[in-house]
Amino acid sequence: MTESALVTDLYQLTMLAAYRRLGFDGEAVFELYARRLPDERGFLLVAGLEQALEYLETLAVSADELAWLGSLGRFEPEFLEWLGRLRFSGEVWAVPEGTALFADEPWLRIVAPLPEAQFVESRLINLLHLETLIASKAARCVLAAGGRALIDFGMRRAHGAEAACLAARAAAIAGFAGTATVAAGRRFGLPLYGTMAHSFVQAHDSEREAFAGYARCHPDRTTLLIDTYDTLAAAREVVALVQGGARVGAVRIDSGDLLEGSRAVRAILDGGGCGAVQILASGNLDEHEIARLSAAGAPIDAFGVGTRLDTSADAPYLDCAYKLEEYAGRPRRKRSWGKATWPGRKQVFRRHDAAGQIAADVVALETERPPGAPLLECVMRGGRRLRPAEPIAALAARTARSLAALPAACRALAAPVPLTAAISSGVRALADEVDRATGD
Amino acid sequence: MTESALVTDLYQLTMLAAYRRLGFDGEAVFELYARRLPDERGFLLVAGLEQALEYLETLAVSADELAWLGSLGRFEPEFLEWLGRLRFSGEVWAVPEGTALFADEPWLRIVAPLPEAQFVESRLINLLHLETLIASKAARCVLAAGGRALIDFGMRRAHGAEAACLAARAAAIAGFAGTATVAAGRRFGLPLYGTMAHSFVQAHDSEREAFAGYARCHPDRTTLLIDTYDTLAAAREVVALVQGGARVGAVRIDSGDLLEGSRAVRAILDGGGCGAVQILASGNLDEHEIARLSAAGAPIDAFGVGTRLDTSADAPYLDCAYKLEEYAGRPRRKRSWGKATWPGRKQVFRRHDAAGQIAADVVALETERPPGAPLLECVMRGGRRLRPAEPIAALAARTARSLAALPAACRALAAPVPLTAAISSGVRALADEVDRATGD
Repeated sequence: MTESALVTDLYQLTMLAAYRRLGFDGEAVFELYARRLPDERGFLLVAGLEQALEYLETLAVSADELAWLGSLGRFEPEFLEWLGRLRFSGEVWAVPEGTALFADEPWLRIVAPLPEAQFVESRLINLLHLETLIASKAARCVLAAGGRALIDFGMRRAHGAEAACLAARAAAIAGFAGTATVAAGRRFGLPLYGTMAHSFVQAHDSEREAFAGYARCHPDRTTLLIDTYDTLAAAREVVALVQGGARVGAVRIDSGDLLEGSRAVRAILDGGGCGAVQILASGNLDEHEIARLSAAGAPIDAFGVGTRLDTSADAPYLDCAYKLEEYAGRPRRKRSWGKATWPGRKQVFRRHDAAGQIAADVVALETERPPGAPLLECVMRGGRRLRPAEPIAALAARTARSLAALPAACRALAAPVPLTAAISSGVRALADEVDRATGD
Repeated sequence: MTESALVTDLYQLTMLAAYRRLGFDGEAVFELYARRLPDERGFLLVAGLEQALEYLETLAVSADELAWLGSLGRFEPEFLEWLGRLRFSGEVWAVPEGTALFADEPWLRIVAPLPEAQFVESRLINLLHLETLIASKAARCVLAAGGRALIDFGMRRAHGAEAACLAARAAAIAGFAGTATVAAGRRFGLPLYGTMAHSFVQAHDSEREAFAGYARCHPDRTTLLIDTYDTLAAAREVVALVQGGARVGAVRIDSGDLLEGSRAVRAILDGGGCGAVQILASGNLDEHEIARLSAAGAPIDAFGVGTRLDTSADAPYLDCAYKLEEYAGRPRRKRSWGKATWPGRKQVFRRHDAAGQIAADVVALETERPPGAPLLECVMRGGRRLRPAEPIAALAARTARSLAALPAACRALAAPVPLTAAISSGVRALADEVDRATGD
C-alpha cells in the first residue's frame, strides 16, 4: 500500500485532470528547497535521493487503483485511461546525498512535462523531507559523539514502519554505525545491533540467571542490559559471570544519570578485571546529552539513540517546498506573503577557503558562472537513472567531508547559525522580469 | 516491505532465540501505557487498535525473510524453523479507539506465550504510538475549531507514507471531516478533499485564466487557491468568475495573516454577491492558531491542517512503554531509576460525575472492584479478533463523547493539566510483594 502511486494529495489528481483537458503538457521546471532552517539547525544534510529516484523510475497507477479512482465519480474515463499510461519521463538534477545545504538552495530540480512534474510533488517532498530531516539530526549526534559509535534505536517511536526504515538509512548516511531495525538492515544492508529488553531480565527469577542464560545462548560478545533493578549490583553480576568464563562484549545502561552511572559501572568492571567489557548508553539521548557526556569524559563506548533521533524531536519538520520555477520556456514566480520564490533553473555554486571550509554559497541561474563548484548534478534523464545507487559507505564518507567543511557556527549544537546563500544578480534580474510580466 | 514481520528490533529476535533454548514459553502479560504525558497535552486520545490487531492476526515471518535471517549467521536453523511457525495465539485487552486516557493507564494488555508477546513489542508500540500521538493532537484542533470543519493536509511532511495514511485515519477518529491523502481515503474510506496548488496558477499566464480553466474542468463546487500573487485581487477575479456563471464552492487562503485576510476576502465575496462561497484557510495551522482565528470570529468555514498535525510538531512523541507485568503466574516489576512499573494485570475504572464529566480514574488489579466502569475490553482471543472493525464514524462519535466528558483543565489548549489516575491499594500491595520477592 505505502508504495502506491496514490500516496499523493487529491489536488494533484484534480489538477492533472484540468491540465489534461486544457492541454497543459509543456515542459515544467520544479525545484525543491528549504525556505528556512529550524532555529535548532545550522545546516541540512541532504538524504533520500535514492528513494526519490526509485519512486520516479517505477511510478505507475495500477489497474486496481484506477478502478477505485473511477468509483469515486470524480474523474472521466478518458482521464483515468491516460493516468494509467502516465510514467515519469523527465530529467532530475540533484545534490548528492550527504551534502550539507542551507536555506534557498535547491536539493533537487525536476524537468518534465507539467502533469508528470506536478503529480510527483507530494511523495517527492514526503521522501526527501523525512530522510533529510533525520540525517540532519543524526549528523548533529555524530558531531557531538566525538568518534564514539552511534546506533539507531528509534524504530518503536518512529512515525510508522517506513519512517523507521528510512530513519535508519538516513542515520547511517550521517555516520551512525548501524541500527536495531531488522527490516532496515535487510533493505539497506545496514549493520544490525541488538541487546536485550528489561522483560528478558524480569521473566527470570533473578538477574544472575537471566544474564547467564543469555550469555549461554549468545556466546559471542553478548551485550547485557544492567539497569532493570539495581545497576551497580547488576554490574557486579556481570563481573562474576565474566570471571566464570562467559564472554560479555558490553553492558547497556538505559536509565538514571548516565555520567555517574557509567563511571560507577566502569569502576566495578575494571576492578573485576573486565576492562574489555564496553559500556553502551541509551535512554532519551540526543546530541545535547551526548555532548554533555562526551565533554565530561563519561566512560561510554557507544550510544543508542532512539526516539529523539527518529522523530527529530526538537525540530520535527522542515519548511521545504517544491515550486514551479519555469513553464513552457517562461520563468515563473509565486509572490504570496512571506512565501515568495526565486524563478528559473538554479544551481548552487560553493566556494571553499584554503582550510577546506565552506567560504560562500551562491544560488545562481544554471547559465551563470559565479566562482565555486556547482552542487547539483544530472542524475536522471528520460525517467532513467544515470548511474547505480551509491553504497551507504560512500554516502557516509561524503557526509564526513561535508561536516569537516562546515564553518563552526553551522556545526554548533547550541544556537547554530546557518550560512546564508547569496542570490545571484541573474536570479534577481529574472525575478524582476517575471514580476513586470505578471504584475497587475 | 513495511508490513513485514521484520519491522522489529533485532533484540526481539535474539531474546526469542534465548527464550527458545532456555524453555521460556510460559504465559506472559505485557501492558502498553504512557509513563507521562507531554507538557502540551492534557489527555491522550487512544487510536491505532485496529492496525495493531490486524498486525497480530496476520503476523508471520515469510520464507524469504527466514532465508535472509539465516544468511546473517546469527541464528541456528532450528530456531529459524520454529520462528517460521510462530503466530500470535494470545489474548488482547484494550481500551476502545476514541477513548481519552492519562498517564499510567494501560491502552492495551497482551496475554500470550512469552516469545509471542515479546516479539510483537516494537511494532505494537510503533503503531499505537503513532495513531494515538496524532489523534491526541487532532482532538485539540477539534476542540479549538468550535464546530468548523477540519481537513488533514499533512501528507507531504508526515514521516513517510505509512505515517501519512495513519495520521489521516487518526485525525478522522478525532473528528476531522476528511483528508487530502488519496491512499488514506482508499484504505480507510475517508472523505477526500483537494483544492489546487500554486503551480496550477503559475503555469497559466494569468490568474483569471487559471481560475476559469479549473472551474470549467471541475464545475461542481470548485475550490480556488487565491494567494499566489495578490489575495484581494484574486478574490475579485473569483467574484467576476461567479458573476459570469461559474460555480465556485470555496476559496483557499494559504499565507499571510489569516484573520485579516479572511475578513478582507469575505467582504469582497459578499460585496460581489458571493455569500455562498466558503473560505478555507491553511498554512502552518495548529490548535493555537485555529483557536485564535475562531475566537476572533474569523470568517473561515474550514481549516486545512497539515505539517503540525501530521508530525504532532509541539510534542512529536509520547513516552509510552510496553512492560512485562506477569510471567508464568508471577507478577513482575522493573525498578529502574525513574522508570519503575506497576505489576499485575490492571484495569482502568472510570467514574463520571452527575454532569457527565470524568470524576476519577483508578488503575486497579483486574480482580479488584473499585467504583467506576472498566475501560479495557477483551478484543482478541486465541489470536483472532472477537468482532469486526468499528467504522470510523463510530470511533469519531466515541471521541466526541470522550471530549465532552473531559474536565476543562484537561481540554485547555494552553498549559493543560491531565487527570492523575489513582493507583489502587491492590496494585501497591502487589508491588511491595514483588519487591520483597526479588529484592536483594
